[in-house]
Amino acid sequence: MRQTAENLRAQGNTIAFVPTMGYLHEGHLSLMRKGRELADILVASIFVNPAQFAPGEDYEAYPRDPERDAALAEQTGVDILFTSQKNDLYPEGYETYITQTHLPGHLCGQSRPTHFTGVMTIVAKLFHIADPNYAIFGQKDYQQLAIIRKMTRDLDFNIEIVGGPIVRESDGLAMSSRNKYLSPSQRQSALQLYRSLQEVQKLVDSGETKAAVLIETAGNIIAAAPETDIDYIAVCDPDTLADKKIIDRPALMALAVRVGQTRLIDNTILYPQVDNAG
Amino acid sequence: MRQTAENLRAQGNTIAFVPTMGYLHEGHLSLMRKGRELADILVASIFVNPAQFAPGEDYEAYPRDPERDAALAEQTGVDILFTSQKNDLYPEGYETYITQTHLPGHLCGQSRPTHFTGVMTIVAKLFHIADPNYAIFGQKDYQQLAIIRKMTRDLDFNIEIVGGPIVRESDGLAMSSRNKYLSPSQRQSALQLYRSLQEVQKLVDSGETKAAVLIETAGNIIAAAPETDIDYIAVCDPDTLADKKIIDRPALMALAVRVGQTRLIDNTILYPQVDNAG
Repeated sequence: MRQTAENLRAQGNTIAFVPTMGYLHEGHLSLMRKGRELADILVASIFVNPAQFAPGEDYEAYPRDPERDAALAEQTGVDILFTSQKNDLYPEGYETYITQTHLPGHLCGQSRPTHFTGVMTIVAKLFHIADPNYAIFGQKDYQQLAIIRKMTRDLDFNIEIVGGPIVRESDGLAMSSRNKYLSPSQRQSALQLYRSLQEVQKLVDSGETKAAVLIETAGNIIAAAPETDIDYIAVCDPDTLADKKIIDRPALMALAVRVGQTRLIDNTILYPQVDNAG
Repeated sequence: MRQTAENLRAQGNTIAFVPTMGYLHEGHLSLMRKGRELADILVASIFVNPAQFAPGEDYEAYPRDPERDAALAEQTGVDILFTSQKNDLYPEGYETYITQTHLPGHLCGQSRPTHFTGVMTIVAKLFHIADPNYAIFGQKDYQQLAIIRKMTRDLDFNIEIVGGPIVRESDGLAMSSRNKYLSPSQRQSALQLYRSLQEVQKLVDSGETKAAVLIETAGNIIAAAPETDIDYIAVCDPDTLADKKIIDRPALMALAVRVGQTRLIDNTILYPQVDNAG
């Protein structure tokens, strides 16, 4: 792959890159379509990255369907689909990792303390292999996108990071490979994640600015649904991810909820009411 | 610099890169000459990297002479000399670092626990900026070279790491920008670093294989010189840097000694006697 990328770049092509863990859904495909518009060559990767799963998480169980993925990628205009096995990218004796001192301490990083080191490390490796001009990541994994943007800027990667909007099922559930784990009743409970975000935005539209009120509102909606266990609900600065007490400018509301055994995340940017009275 | 490198690479040039902290001496120039042979374009950088100095180390005092450096680099065939200020490479809010789990735990890493994270981080940044095909590092900083090689392999950088041999003053002292700190009498003491390595090699040539004997021999030679304070003397595997008890194949002997306030390092590969009796 590295040699192919080198040849393509030497011939003057630009490369857009969409890294995935496979089991592709419309969310991934939307990122691929965006990449298709940005560059001459569209590269996608499928690699279930062991370094971003902690012991006891679902690395082994993570859904895989390489044949369907290959067909979907081709239909969506992917020129090169790069797949790799665990031992190719993490051979015996592997020992180099990328860390950040602040962004991973928030949100998902609090219950998954090693997760983002694994994400940054594999993304840096794939960047070196695919040598893209553009890399596209979904906003559903908002913290991941923020961390990759920061890593790219801090380490001076010559790559433009592009975010793609959350893609939802028709009932509002944010698309995720992990939705496959949900039973029909759990799926009903899972809908409350998006519903809580919508209700909170309505409160914000009606003038509420206190984060504690918004978090309590969302928490009550989600907790009322069966089989839900809230990991976190946070209102924070969209850049630093630091908690906010009062929404005085656009803020990120992000949440992670276990529905049965399945951990789901969702988020939205809350736009405070603009006071037109002045 | 990144834009210049991108244009040069797009035009089909290869790039060799020599990163330095300036105050150039013949050791640096030998690396530049090697780079000059390897590639179309020779890039060198001068940046005294704050991230590799701990509080209380000599970051502020580190010798600097940018005009002389620029003249020497030009005479030695450097096409592009990239210099940068602290705040350009570590702006406010900088938070991304590269770590290794094993190699930095040995040798200099034991008394300088954050040093190699600083080294790896700046080297990765400079690699992204200069986009070289080859990067040349001196074997005097043996552990640094081993760590950079490992980082380059682990993170899949498309760069060949080249080592350059230790260059010594006529009296045997390994060249270092820090030699400038030494008083005339300290300089005499400093000569015992290389002398101890030579004496140890003689012992090995005469059949000695026990690391403890070699370390004690070197230690006695160095400790007998005034104003010396040994940080470590180690005999270890040249790849893993793990201590060796018996030299059954080529081994690294590395040492770090404070002479007055100046911390000096030196090393050699010890080649065990080949038994021709068989």
